[in-house]
Amino acid sequence: MPNPVEFYFDFSSPYAYFAAQQIDRLVEGFDREVIWKPMMLGAAMKETGAQPLTRLPIKGDYSRNDWARLARFQELKWTLPEAFPFAAIAPSRAFYWITEQDKAKAKAFAWDCFTTCFGDGQPISTKEAVAAIAARQGYAENDVMAALEDEAIKQRLKDETSAAVAKGVFGSPFIIVDGEGFWGADRLWMVKRWLRSGGW
Amino acid sequence: MPNPVEFYFDFSSPYAYFAAQQIDRLVEGFDREVIWKPMMLGAAMKETGAQPLTRLPIKGDYSRNDWARLARFQELKWTLPEAFPFAAIAPSRAFYWITEQDKAKAKAFAWDCFTTCFGDGQPISTKEAVAAIAARQGYAENDVMAALEDEAIKQRLKDETSAAVAKGVFGSPFIIVDGEGFWGADRLWMVKRWLRSGGW
Repeated sequence: MPNPVEFYFDFSSPYAYFAAQQIDRLVEGFDREVIWKPMMLGAAMKETGAQPLTRLPIKGDYSRNDWARLARFQELKWTLPEAFPFAAIAPSRAFYWITEQDKAKAKAFAWDCFTTCFGDGQPISTKEAVAAIAARQGYAENDVMAALEDEAIKQRLKDETSAAVAKGVFGSPFIIVDGEGFWGADRLWMVKRWLRSGGW
Repeated sequence: MPNPVEFYFDFSSPYAYFAAQQIDRLVEGFDREVIWKPMMLGAAMKETGAQPLTRLPIKGDYSRNDWARLARFQELKWTLPEAFPFAAIAPSRAFYWITEQDKAKAKAFAWDCFTTCFGDGQPISTKEAVAAIAARQGYAENDVMAALEDEAIKQRLKDETSAAVAKGVFGSPFIIVDGEGFWGADRLWMVKRWLRSGGW
């Protein structure tokens, strides 16, 4: 099988929500696995000096409107959570704990996190919220709560974040295929083109 | 005729080159005029605290690769000029001088500036370079040189830039239609969708 398509994202990134809806469908038929890789975007943004969009003058308002518009265009529910931006450590740790057991369930869990957060506007930053979402994939809430404090899982998220930054990931979503990086939900057409043509 | 499509850009912006190739063709059939509006992006970037892409760590390298890749995908010549970023005051002033006489020639002049700069990698920041490009639209180089120092033309560029910033333009390219703003060459599909559906 050729190289996988690596889908890097932060659970607190609205543009990741819009890309997550499409990425697996987009890669269908290309004989490539899509590997979802949540990361702590804050660590990556330190490298470029970037700031959360909603904290920037003018760009903040532009982004809010752009997200609502994208949701209409992609026929997705849209609510920006009251607490935004937020730290997405808990859902990211839970994702890696689940994916070590079942990759498909981990993606379903991740998509449920995205729709809970940006579709319904509900918080996903607390351990309790994450455990409730994981429970919908059949995991016992107590097991999830324990996993969120597991040292190996904590380290896995740190390592995945460092590895992403080392590969040049500086935003969310960010897709890497064959060593080529694509930043942004609006770069998906280029990913598809790359898969078709190998870059030409 | 419905509202025009306003195409804001800075002549030193590679992403404006990629959008400029497509914008008039994209709007064909929608009964809308496309008005090209060069501006001084530096003034707009002060409002958001943004920096030129190539000066940012990591993002600079990403952008250089992204431009070359976009050029391949859009079948455009691509050379990043040695002096980059550069001040695009001269071509912007010349554009407004020409457009007061002939809008179609002004667009042809602007596209010639873009291909000279980003296709051939030749400077377009000097008065001499701009006069030579305007000459290809039939203007006497001496008249162009005089226009570049004309107080009314200087003021026009300042006013256009202030008006753009007042409308929320903070990047290049930036498209406004029916009061709705779209930032970036990768937002052209959304402009088309807006023209088709009125935002839905």
